[in-house]
Amino acid sequence: MRILGIDPGTATTGYGVVDYRAGKEKMVAYGTIKTEAGMAMPLRLHHIKLQLDQLLQEYLPDKVAVEEIFYNRNSKTVISVAQSRGVVLMTAAAAGLPVLEYTPLQVKQAVVGYGNADKKQVQLMVQRILGMKEIPRPDDAADALAIAICGLHSNRLGEL
Amino acid sequence: MRILGIDPGTATTGYGVVDYRAGKEKMVAYGTIKTEAGMAMPLRLHHIKLQLDQLLQEYLPDKVAVEEIFYNRNSKTVISVAQSRGVVLMTAAAAGLPVLEYTPLQVKQAVVGYGNADKKQVQLMVQRILGMKEIPRPDDAADALAIAICGLHSNRLGEL
Repeated sequence: MRILGIDPGTATTGYGVVDYRAGKEKMVAYGTIKTEAGMAMPLRLHHIKLQLDQLLQEYLPDKVAVEEIFYNRNSKTVISVAQSRGVVLMTAAAAGLPVLEYTPLQVKQAVVGYGNADKKQVQLMVQRILGMKEIPRPDDAADALAIAICGLHSNRLGEL
Repeated sequence: MRILGIDPGTATTGYGVVDYRAGKEKMVAYGTIKTEAGMAMPLRLHHIKLQLDQLLQEYLPDKVAVEEIFYNRNSKTVISVAQSRGVVLMTAAAAGLPVLEYTPLQVKQAVVGYGNADKKQVQLMVQRILGMKEIPRPDDAADALAIAICGLHSNRLGEL
């Protein structure tokens, strides 16, 4: 089982690819898709779509995992993140892949074990679970890895 | 000059195609893209993308016009409308088309002449400008025609 976790945004979209093999999680790749601030929004969204298509072709995930968006943020951010998230969901569907959606609470519970963990605790657990030497950077990529781990865990629970 | 106006949504996305020819606006087509409530969101967004691609191929617009989203709505609606809007912007960019973006105020001013016109006044003016026998239905399609008319007007102002 291989899951591509995505943390959508317009300037920076984080991604993380995680496998479940031989009884443990294994980091395959992580990074970010960046778009320039001066670029028109439609072109930025198209760039994200093309880069996502490349990630799907390169890593051939079985599923895509994305966090749900909540309303307790800056208005402009919510709208632009939602626009990017729409492109991510559509791109996964176009590739015929199932999309797993989790709340931030579910991601924290899956990675750290309790829902009110802070960002640093989540990142330390991502590092430990994946046996990485350092905390993955930047935050968007670490978040995407956490979402992918959440997807693997809930998938394993579903199989039991 | 031919403009495709889009009023994004997930259940219903309105569209309207309007030409400017021989000194006046002319309605070419209007309608809605519908998706079923029971369908998963990624599949709904993909359906919207495929239907939009068909509209772009069929009507060959010069530009696409879309309204900006504001925050003074129900939270769940804002997020799902923004996700659909992201797919619309991306699809236009993928087709190499410029995207015109207007506030609701700009659309009302362009169509009715003042910014605090109500929905009914906008629809009556859309009917009159396009010389239609009845008010275009449903609301999403009428809104899309209004956005397209706004795009034509601002385009003509730009040419003067």
